[in-house]
Amino acid sequence: MGHTGAAEDTAASDHASDPTPGSIRPGGRTARVREAVLRAAGDLLAEYGFAALDLAEVAARAEVGKTTVYRRWRNPAGLVADLLVDMAETSLPHSDTGSLRGDLLANARLVGKTLTDARQGRLFRAIIAAATSDDTAAAALRAFYDTRLAEWSPCVEAAVARGEVPPGTDPRAVLSAVSAPLYYRLLASGDPVDEAAVSTAATAAALAAEQGVFISGPARSTR
Amino acid sequence: MGHTGAAEDTAASDHASDPTPGSIRPGGRTARVREAVLRAAGDLLAEYGFAALDLAEVAARAEVGKTTVYRRWRNPAGLVADLLVDMAETSLPHSDTGSLRGDLLANARLVGKTLTDARQGRLFRAIIAAATSDDTAAAALRAFYDTRLAEWSPCVEAAVARGEVPPGTDPRAVLSAVSAPLYYRLLASGDPVDEAAVSTAATAAALAAEQGVFISGPARSTR
Repeated sequence: MGHTGAAEDTAASDHASDPTPGSIRPGGRTARVREAVLRAAGDLLAEYGFAALDLAEVAARAEVGKTTVYRRWRNPAGLVADLLVDMAETSLPHSDTGSLRGDLLANARLVGKTLTDARQGRLFRAIIAAATSDDTAAAALRAFYDTRLAEWSPCVEAAVARGEVPPGTDPRAVLSAVSAPLYYRLLASGDPVDEAAVSTAATAAALAAEQGVFISGPARSTR
Repeated sequence: MGHTGAAEDTAASDHASDPTPGSIRPGGRTARVREAVLRAAGDLLAEYGFAALDLAEVAARAEVGKTTVYRRWRNPAGLVADLLVDMAETSLPHSDTGSLRGDLLANARLVGKTLTDARQGRLFRAIIAAATSDDTAAAALRAFYDTRLAEWSPCVEAAVARGEVPPGTDPRAVLSAVSAPLYYRLLASGDPVDEAAVSTAATAAALAAEQGVFISGPARSTR
């Protein structure tokens, strides 16, 4: 997502990357404004955290009028919520390596790469912090994970069809089991989110899935 | 940890639960002040989150002089750090049920109970939020988990001695695997931290441990 330098309201209209005022752009001005605002909000969140997120500062950095930002996003939680909608829309499609172990390793690598990326890792921590104290941000975060987990569910469904895991295995539970140890390292224990952690998370989740631990409902096996 | 109503400096000394000024209490006045301040800080954190934590408000609620609180804890992160030291000191001893599965289930139940407790669950979320943006709080949180994980390590060591899991199994990795899915639910997916989640977390971790997934170092099995 590049910074388009979208200008509106009181912001300067002579930005270098926008030399032709009034020219038609994909998505139009509204989409350009949203892109610039969400990029600025994400940058500021990653840099200073949720408690310091200020709509006027976001507007200034995005080169968008303050009134536009206040009217459309209302408050910091509104920005976080829309940022999560945008992040869910741009998430990567699921892998299809031909085996559950391969797919879960690909998923674990993707999560690990996101959490260890300098900007993305800090951004996720800031958003999760926001969700601990704000219901709007919390609901948006749940919706983001719903999208992410649903996107990768076909990997588990295919594993059921191939007979790698028992029927009734819950895709959301399997995929949550892959992500959880990596988030725990990032947010709680402080242990590194490295290749060993990624590989262990995928292997442990696959093993448990194969042995029926993630069958939903009361028929779950404990062995 | 009960509220002792410890009074100091400018605070009122006629609190109902402290009818005998100057009487000797276990731990003395310094310990009583600390207990009252940490109880107040924990209550305010659970109620309003880290961003709203104010030392003057903590002092007022603890009935302790403001100058004492500022001098001893300096800032909100200092309070969070000392609260975590106190929480680590009061954590429960590890179980010894005779099997790794039983011990991990006991551990998962303890973590689940903490995270779903009205006050404790909110307190943990507030502390984790603090740790995402403050290095002092983050270091204190790591130290807290170090203590907790070390306290339960003997369960895994006993399982190695009993031959339930292979030699070289890393206790910290096993215990992290039990906690991680529960924290992921609390902080990310929003899925309930219920008995099914607790039981699944313990079973999945035990299974993976039994199959050598948590052997530390390069000799780790992937099956």
